[in-house]
Amino acid sequence: MEIKTVVMEIPEGANIIIGQTHFIKTAEDLYEVMVNGVPGIKFGIAFCEASGPCLVRAEGNDNSLKEVAIRNASNIAAGHTFVILIKEAFPVNVLNSIKACPEVCSIYCATANPVQVIVAETEQGGGILGVIDGYRPKGIETEKDVQDRKHFLRNIGYKL
Amino acid sequence: MEIKTVVMEIPEGANIIIGQTHFIKTAEDLYEVMVNGVPGIKFGIAFCEASGPCLVRAEGNDNSLKEVAIRNASNIAAGHTFVILIKEAFPVNVLNSIKACPEVCSIYCATANPVQVIVAETEQGGGILGVIDGYRPKGIETEKDVQDRKHFLRNIGYKL
Amino acid sequence: MEIKTVVMEIPEGANIIIGQTHFIKTAEDLYEVMVNGVPGIKFGIAFCEASGPCLVRAEGNDNSLKEVAIRNASNIAAGHTFVILIKEAFPVNVLNSIKACPEVCSIYCATANPVQVIVAETEQGGGILGVIDGYRPKGIETEKDVQDRKHFLRNIGYKL
Amino acid sequence: MEIKTVVMEIPEGANIIIGQTHFIKTAEDLYEVMVNGVPGIKFGIAFCEASGPCLVRAEGNDNSLKEVAIRNASNIAAGHTFVILIKEAFPVNVLNSIKACPEVCSIYCATANPVQVIVAETEQGGGILGVIDGYRPKGIETEKDVQDRKHFLRNIGYKL
Amino acid sequence: MEIKTVVMEIPEGANIIIGQTHFIKTAEDLYEVMVNGVPGIKFGIAFCEASGPCLVRAEGNDNSLKEVAIRNASNIAAGHTFVILIKEAFPVNVLNSIKACPEVCSIYCATANPVQVIVAETEQGGGILGVIDGYRPKGIETEKDVQDRKHFLRNIGYKL
Amino acid sequence: MEIKTVVMEIPEGANIIIGQTHFIKTAEDLYEVMVNGVPGIKFGIAFCEASGPCLVRAEGNDNSLKEVAIRNASNIAAGHTFVILIKEAFPVNVLNSIKACPEVCSIYCATANPVQVIVAETEQGGGILGVIDGYRPKGIETEKDVQDRKHFLRNIGYKL
Repeated sequence: MEIKTVVMEIPEGANIIIGQTHFIKTAEDLYEVMVNGVPGIKFGIAFCEASGPCLVRAEGNDNSLKEVAIRNASNIAAGHTFVILIKEAFPVNVLNSIKACPEVCSIYCATANPVQVIVAETEQGGGILGVIDGYRPKGIETEKDVQDRKHFLRNIGYKL
Repeated sequence: MEIKTVVMEIPEGANIIIGQTHFIKTAEDLYEVMVNGVPGIKFGIAFCEASGPCLVRAEGNDNSLKEVAIRNASNIAAGHTFVILIKEAFPVNVLNSIKACPEVCSIYCATANPVQVIVAETEQGGGILGVIDGYRPKGIETEKDVQDRKHFLRNIGYKL
Repeated sequence: MEIKTVVMEIPEGANIIIGQTHFIKTAEDLYEVMVNGVPGIKFGIAFCEASGPCLVRAEGNDNSLKEVAIRNASNIAAGHTFVILIKEAFPVNVLNSIKACPEVCSIYCATANPVQVIVAETEQGGGILGVIDGYRPKGIETEKDVQDRKHFLRNIGYKL
Repeated sequence: MEIKTVVMEIPEGANIIIGQTHFIKTAEDLYEVMVNGVPGIKFGIAFCEASGPCLVRAEGNDNSLKEVAIRNASNIAAGHTFVILIKEAFPVNVLNSIKACPEVCSIYCATANPVQVIVAETEQGGGILGVIDGYRPKGIETEKDVQDRKHFLRNIGYKL
Repeated sequence: MEIKTVVMEIPEGANIIIGQTHFIKTAEDLYEVMVNGVPGIKFGIAFCEASGPCLVRAEGNDNSLKEVAIRNASNIAAGHTFVILIKEAFPVNVLNSIKACPEVCSIYCATANPVQVIVAETEQGGGILGVIDGYRPKGIETEKDVQDRKHFLRNIGYKL
Repeated sequence: MEIKTVVMEIPEGANIIIGQTHFIKTAEDLYEVMVNGVPGIKFGIAFCEASGPCLVRAEGNDNSLKEVAIRNASNIAAGHTFVILIKEAFPVNVLNSIKACPEVCSIYCATANPVQVIVAETEQGGGILGVIDGYRPKGIETEKDVQDRKHFLRNIGYKL
């Protein structure tokens, strides 16, 4: 077994969501989750079929994001994993609906940060072990940082 | 720390679901999730108790699947993990209810494919890092493959 | 890439929950999940911001548990991960609400056992690959053990 | 405003589920919920479109149950309500997935008992106020009845 | 058909939750929801079986609350409805888990206020149409009332 | 007891959602559900406090929709009910998150149609019995109508 890191391609202004699922129906079901979630969302989905023809299956309403999702999924190359790229919406808008999709097992990450996916490779195939999502902490917030954090969330309207 | 791969035993026609949980009550609660989910489902569940007697705890309504679940869980040997084998039903029928079980943390995979579980071993114990679920992609679907995929799902009645 | 184990600090009588999330709002949202969940719960939450100032963000209603959560999160040092320490309540009381928090991706573990977190380190940052939650199995339950397990759950009032 | 009772037609061996929803997509989405839920389930769905052509929209995989659903929905005649008839499965198998359907507002009842739907009628249209689901209580269970209830659930395998 | 109001009995310091469900297993399942939810919760549950023996079925861990739940359910006397009385916990702690119980259809109310249940009676049986939960509004909040509301929620620790 | 109909005011292009809840925190929690759901959503929320000062409590990010929500809630005048008006988004985008809000009991309707709310009035207060959501059915869909319905959903991108 070999363990390698695969760098995700994330277009400017996009977020990436990576997860584990278990059925070819995922491509259509996640498409519906996206369009149900946010009017005007732009997205691409790619899913690594893990038996039979073993194709990277893809859906979406934005060709560019679909292409990026396909490239990322192809590079991860792990059976039954999926990659979603979204614009004009944020993971917080759709994550609970993805988690509730009846084929989805779990979500590895949802982020606009640089992402490295840690992949195990055996003779049989590949599997995601984890992700490096952005950067490691540089410090611990002070009382001032706490206040700034609260003001920030209230300024952008997420909290009252 | 050592990292090894553990091959899952999956009987012909069965699906396997592997996850992380946190309480001995899991064995009974997952039993109920299964019988609530699908009339006539056949299943076996095994759970690795992670403290005290540290026994592999098992429930189910099919002795053969229960035996397989126990062997798989014993081979993974990772605290608070569980393995479910099902027949006469599919993961899509029960996965959301497993995710909603109040002790369950997450699902590593749900599949009928060959599965290798990547396990970390320390002096203290073992932990699942990830899974190899089936095979790596061999290509990207063409427009023709997309049509075939859609027809397939509609032929088996999953989509209209 | 380097893979290391990070030992969690878990105070006597406390449980730890470790997960992956994706937004600074997590600190406040998980705070609310905790207080909504159980009257009288004591807890501390720490979250590794993964971009910009990259601070460990923390909330809670118990300073000692908040300090422990901060130390654990700082030691894991993986972007967008969170650590919760709870007392006067159990993971089973709050886990479904944490899973349903709109920023949360997944839960790595929920336990009162000793925990080693397996972390991958690259030049970019760190990421959780898995956890060693307690100890590996020492055997398989006998019919007598099954009866004891059922009596135990009924004696403590969890089942009828 | 007039208040009337509408008697539901429930074929031998079938269960009925009645609810409130809000979008023509409900017919297809509930179809998918049913087929995702239980392999081999037989069902019919009817939905009262509440604007534009105001048609009773129907889906299903059993023509007889679809006809019954249409007759029941037509008799209730309340905007945005739906009626599902199922066989070879039970409400407990599918109810949580129906509740989680993104258009569904609420469920009025799920039962194999005789059902009378209480409908308010105004010049504008009709609306469900409630249901009479089966019969009123005839007594309070004794200690012996409690034991019988517990044995019954354990005999049919729903509890351990 | 007759429509009547039934006054609920709510002990000092208790909250009442009233809902619609569909299976005798509800009594045990709601018991488990309660004990899973909050350590130390005190509660009584009563459920109106709607076919066969048509008994009011009851569970709980507090005899006094169980008696009150039975009296309330007997007075409502509507098939497949349930009544829960809780102390040492609040509806916000358990309501999502009740909604997710696989037999539960819907919740009519959750409150510590005086409650009148509006019940329709036919020759066949009874059904809940709605509830009067507390009192009608006396005015609209001013800017000062908004500030007081926010301070109140922050003073009791529900918001930051 | 008196039963009356209350006509909802729904601005051009808006949708209304009406439900039952149980705590003053609802106003802030539903505010957060809305902003978490859809970037750019415009909404107003009003909630009928049912004890103490019994004020109509309101939040939102659009004053006009907030005013309409307050008028509607004041006219319904039923304890612990809430009214949400939304623009730039649809109920399907936010309904599951509203259902999952820990104080919410149930949803009466979600619609852009004319709505009449059926309210019971006693000396104590008011309660919602049901809603007339749009118009009653005028017919049953033909095979041609089924095809049109499917094309419509695919043309607007909701299904593939």
